[in-house]
Amino acid sequence: MTSVLIAIGCGLLAVIYGLFTSRQVLSASPGDEKMQEIAGAIQEGAKAYLGRQYTTIAIVGVIVAVIIAATLGLLSTVSFLIGAVLSGAAGYIGMNISVRANVRTAEAARTSLQGGLTLAFRSGAITGMLVAGLGLLAIAVLFWYLVHISGLAPNDRQIIAALTALAFGASLISIFARLGGGIFTKAADVGADLVGKVEAGIPEDDPRNPAVIADNVGDNVGDCAGMAADLFETYVVTLGLTMVSIALLVKASSAEIMQLMSLPLLVGGVCIITSIIGTYFVRLGGSNNIMGALYKGFWVTVGLSAIGIYFATQYVLGDMNTVVGADLEGKGGYTGMALFYCMMIGLIVTGLLVWITEYYTGTNYRPVKSIARASVTGHGTNVIQGLAISLESTALPTLVIVVAVIATFQVAGIIGVAFAATSLLALAGMVVALDAYGPVTDNAGGIAEMAGLPDDVRHRTDALDAVGNTTKAVTKGYAIGSAALAALVLFGAYTTDLREYFPSVTVDFSLNNPYVIVGLLLGALLPYLFGAFGMTAVGRAAGSVVEDVREQFRNDAGIMAGTSRPNYARTVDIVTKAAIKEMIIPSLLPVLTPIAVYFIITAVAGQAEGFAALGALLLGVIVSGLFVAISMTSGGGAWDNAKKYIEDGHHGGKGSDAHKAAVTGDTVGDPYKDTAGPAVNPMIKITNIVALLLLAALAHGAM
Amino acid sequence: MTSVLIAIGCGLLAVIYGLFTSRQVLSASPGDEKMQEIAGAIQEGAKAYLGRQYTTIAIVGVIVAVIIAATLGLLSTVSFLIGAVLSGAAGYIGMNISVRANVRTAEAARTSLQGGLTLAFRSGAITGMLVAGLGLLAIAVLFWYLVHISGLAPNDRQIIAALTALAFGASLISIFARLGGGIFTKAADVGADLVGKVEAGIPEDDPRNPAVIADNVGDNVGDCAGMAADLFETYVVTLGLTMVSIALLVKASSAEIMQLMSLPLLVGGVCIITSIIGTYFVRLGGSNNIMGALYKGFWVTVGLSAIGIYFATQYVLGDMNTVVGADLEGKGGYTGMALFYCMMIGLIVTGLLVWITEYYTGTNYRPVKSIARASVTGHGTNVIQGLAISLESTALPTLVIVVAVIATFQVAGIIGVAFAATSLLALAGMVVALDAYGPVTDNAGGIAEMAGLPDDVRHRTDALDAVGNTTKAVTKGYAIGSAALAALVLFGAYTTDLREYFPSVTVDFSLNNPYVIVGLLLGALLPYLFGAFGMTAVGRAAGSVVEDVREQFRNDAGIMAGTSRPNYARTVDIVTKAAIKEMIIPSLLPVLTPIAVYFIITAVAGQAEGFAALGALLLGVIVSGLFVAISMTSGGGAWDNAKKYIEDGHHGGKGSDAHKAAVTGDTVGDPYKDTAGPAVNPMIKITNIVALLLLAALAHGAM
Repeated sequence: MTSVLIAIGCGLLAVIYGLFTSRQVLSASPGDEKMQEIAGAIQEGAKAYLGRQYTTIAIVGVIVAVIIAATLGLLSTVSFLIGAVLSGAAGYIGMNISVRANVRTAEAARTSLQGGLTLAFRSGAITGMLVAGLGLLAIAVLFWYLVHISGLAPNDRQIIAALTALAFGASLISIFARLGGGIFTKAADVGADLVGKVEAGIPEDDPRNPAVIADNVGDNVGDCAGMAADLFETYVVTLGLTMVSIALLVKASSAEIMQLMSLPLLVGGVCIITSIIGTYFVRLGGSNNIMGALYKGFWVTVGLSAIGIYFATQYVLGDMNTVVGADLEGKGGYTGMALFYCMMIGLIVTGLLVWITEYYTGTNYRPVKSIARASVTGHGTNVIQGLAISLESTALPTLVIVVAVIATFQVAGIIGVAFAATSLLALAGMVVALDAYGPVTDNAGGIAEMAGLPDDVRHRTDALDAVGNTTKAVTKGYAIGSAALAALVLFGAYTTDLREYFPSVTVDFSLNNPYVIVGLLLGALLPYLFGAFGMTAVGRAAGSVVEDVREQFRNDAGIMAGTSRPNYARTVDIVTKAAIKEMIIPSLLPVLTPIAVYFIITAVAGQAEGFAALGALLLGVIVSGLFVAISMTSGGGAWDNAKKYIEDGHHGGKGSDAHKAAVTGDTVGDPYKDTAGPAVNPMIKITNIVALLLLAALAHGAM
Repeated sequence: MTSVLIAIGCGLLAVIYGLFTSRQVLSASPGDEKMQEIAGAIQEGAKAYLGRQYTTIAIVGVIVAVIIAATLGLLSTVSFLIGAVLSGAAGYIGMNISVRANVRTAEAARTSLQGGLTLAFRSGAITGMLVAGLGLLAIAVLFWYLVHISGLAPNDRQIIAALTALAFGASLISIFARLGGGIFTKAADVGADLVGKVEAGIPEDDPRNPAVIADNVGDNVGDCAGMAADLFETYVVTLGLTMVSIALLVKASSAEIMQLMSLPLLVGGVCIITSIIGTYFVRLGGSNNIMGALYKGFWVTVGLSAIGIYFATQYVLGDMNTVVGADLEGKGGYTGMALFYCMMIGLIVTGLLVWITEYYTGTNYRPVKSIARASVTGHGTNVIQGLAISLESTALPTLVIVVAVIATFQVAGIIGVAFAATSLLALAGMVVALDAYGPVTDNAGGIAEMAGLPDDVRHRTDALDAVGNTTKAVTKGYAIGSAALAALVLFGAYTTDLREYFPSVTVDFSLNNPYVIVGLLLGALLPYLFGAFGMTAVGRAAGSVVEDVREQFRNDAGIMAGTSRPNYARTVDIVTKAAIKEMIIPSLLPVLTPIAVYFIITAVAGQAEGFAALGALLLGVIVSGLFVAISMTSGGGAWDNAKKYIEDGHHGGKGSDAHKAAVTGDTVGDPYKDTAGPAVNPMIKITNIVALLLLAALAHGAM
């Protein structure tokens, strides 16, 4: 139990770090009046959007909560609500910091690159630590309460149910937040670019463009709030389901189960501390290499975490070579060393995924350069090469994940895979910090432009922002990579639940069973359909932005002349409405599909085949989703940076034909990387968790 | 045995139809001297390319034949060579007809639309009937020889080995032909457009463009020869493996096995006759609706086939309600009615796939119109909407296939699924006819333009060509749809082989086994990697076209002035070399991957897991390949027709900004729909067949 309390302590530490660093960030100068005015408009828009988004989500949430209350009982309902509220909170707080840090980063970038970097990264770190800290607190406190106060055994069914419902709450909110925020940010971005850069011929972030505030609001509600909610969900699902899988798949004494189940919590706690230490190592060296500075912080965290995880494992299990427990067939068993090795594999996977993503999206390597070169021959070849890179970028991450699955499974079975996923996610604080820094610098650039700050300030924020494209892609690759590892664990939980709830039903999960193929195909379809919805939504919402801006230009010639102020709020409002309308149907797709597939196949071929198809659906969605998500997020990042590479003076630089082609690629990449691609991760999780909940509901005779 | 002889007769009839109709086509006027000169250059280029391509493939083929001879014996080697030679022949003959029909179609279009349609469609029908006829002859004669002359039992291991090797030969050639031809056609097309339309500002098919002959050559070697080789392969694999699956999966007397195994052959034969009849129904009605005319032929064929299949089944099995045989567990059994129902489902699937493809790629429906509308706001939104449609277009075909799998499996188990695939493919003669007509009209348009024929000729060929975009997409959706049905059958063959060859190895194909997940992920990766190779190859080869053309323009100002003739042959030569170089590595990917996966996983985790991972790989490749292929081929067709829709005068028509954006989308769609997408089908087949051959080689102790 002490380990759990230590974990809770670490979670609180993360929150304290957040409060303390917020103070630091907020005490920085917010710049001159004009800057504050612009920042105020962004804040207002972001708050208005998030307020409306959460109201809509709350309605869905309450309906789902009522269904859960009716089918699964009070404990599950409360856990669901905790997950939902905290996921929303993670997004809300992150957004609240970033809309204040943006203007302060612009102001700090007046003086030096280091100043801008420090401010932006600190604000990212606040979001990062809150995501990890709140996630850890939610799981650890719930577990502690149920074991210590309610006196349940650690592997009691009620604890499993509570952790699953907690994960569901987090996932449900995060898919809405990821998708709604993603549609908002890209509709505003694409719309602003189309009507501003392309039609009116004014530069990005020009204050005469009525969509410019909406574009900056988007960075905050999509790349910051949506991302934070998503990573909170990933954290809770991964750690929570590692614990659930121990409870379900390990045969051991209650004390041993307690030991194993508290290990993920302590590892999470330790890695919060190492992440906090890591943030202080983010400093520019003599070469002013921004990526290098961020990497310094990241690698310090990885190194310290490796050491910390060793001691955490030793602390929890005592001797590192004693065998604890066994698998369900009474074979195997787990030593501290074995679990430690698996967690090291998780850290190595993190490092490799970061490196591969940088290779595919960084301006120094072949992929981005090849897209930039292809831009010389026009829009078409830019897009062809970008699609080729996006397809190719799936190969190395898949191989890394495959090798990790084989290695961890050889060392410690499914539980080993789960622990690798846990150590991967334990670094979430640091990874989110790297990501959340991006939208802040993006906004800072926008504010610098709109407030008419000197060119060198904009150069500094641009340099900070280019790195942000890579770090954003990193987080998405990382989240989907963890989903692939978690898929095996989730499937293990599904089959164990099935055996326990329905001992009389023999389910054939063999590939020989056509219903398994049916499930795989239907699962594989989901990311495609979901992606289609996301892309279409952005196109449609961007269209309404274009129309609104055109109308504003038409009705008031003073806007283009710079004599009258455009109605920013009206554009924000239009994007808000469009994004919220568009997010609902696709978000419900992964919730309703598993239920529909189960009932339809059961009606046609009996319950055993219904369960088989549903199980296969869970794997189909990851087998296809992994590729859809990675190709979209890496490809999109590569397109964006190919444009930046040309803007840096290659192939004719800004304004050249190559640049125009690269702008097209960037536009295409936008909904790829920021709307459809990243939302695949929570979609996969939801599908899996809904299946687990469905089993429970069916077993309770509630459906 | 009589049924087999009837099937052979039908195969011969198809060949006679081909010879007879070739005469008709060749007796038409080949136009004036200028037209003949242009057509001559295209013929020369196509022959030169195909000659070189086949030389390269022959080298690979001989190496593989030696390996097969060493590991699997003489019969397999001979069968492999028959499959390989006939697949090549199908492509070669088809190409030879189309390079002669193109100029005659242009000439016929001078007089009337019906004249052009008749000529182009007849030449397509020759290719179609030869594909089906040669395919049927290859399987039926081989089977007849082994049973009747060699006196083997119909389900003798040697017959199974021979049919598998036949399929392998066809597949190996067709992947090279599909990919090499696909790279050639799109490199020439994209290159010609970039340097002609975009840079020099001259129209498509302008004779001053040195790449214009290469572009027209490409239609013949890619869309005609490559497609024919691919569909030949699909035909042989599907019918052949239906027979193999009967031999492996049905428990019955030798006479009953003989009955069941000859049914697919007779169905193939009957449908050749109905397809030939159908071709005579392709006539324009009063409304001059070209698609309607083609559909008339298609639906007549479908209707007659339904009747023909009923009588064929009755002829082979005698009473339609007598139960024949049983499955391996001695359960079930097959009635004529059950098999007939399954084959009807196959016909319905064909009809639905055709209809869905037309919906997604035809100019009358929402998808194409939405892309055209998105073109108004620029290149970026055109591509975004095109990608959205390409993702969405996977949904309905997947649902159709899923329902077909469930229905046929409920009716007659795996054998039912196989028979559905057989009736689907039995219509190949008609479907290929619809497709092969496309490149002929495309060429006819080019020749009309280059030879300076009156505008109304070009209008007629353009109208014929627009329909070709849809029929081309139809064939590809059809081929990949059959692959999805065949996947289950192939997997059944794999597991049965495994049990027979390695009775002592227990392989766990359950989704619980992590090596199954590993196999699924690696299989799912293949279409992505393969797609990346294909797209990059086109980009690179198109780049060399652009450079060559630029150099020709630079060195001889007379070319643009129209006073000197460009060096067409040099450009053809450059594309030829590039395409052949680029096709080799990706084509070997599906050959070598299954072997590598088996040996690596066996080394790491033992043979049972090696077999499990290999089996899962086979399903992973279809689960992901189905979506990659459909999204690419439908999306590409939609982009192409969105451009045509705008050229028809919508959204500003030719020369408008919307048109420019639509040209970009068309360029992106080119390698999508004609290079990477269609090559996924033979790639899936190869992966599966290599796995079957690997099992045989391992069992013979040869590896």
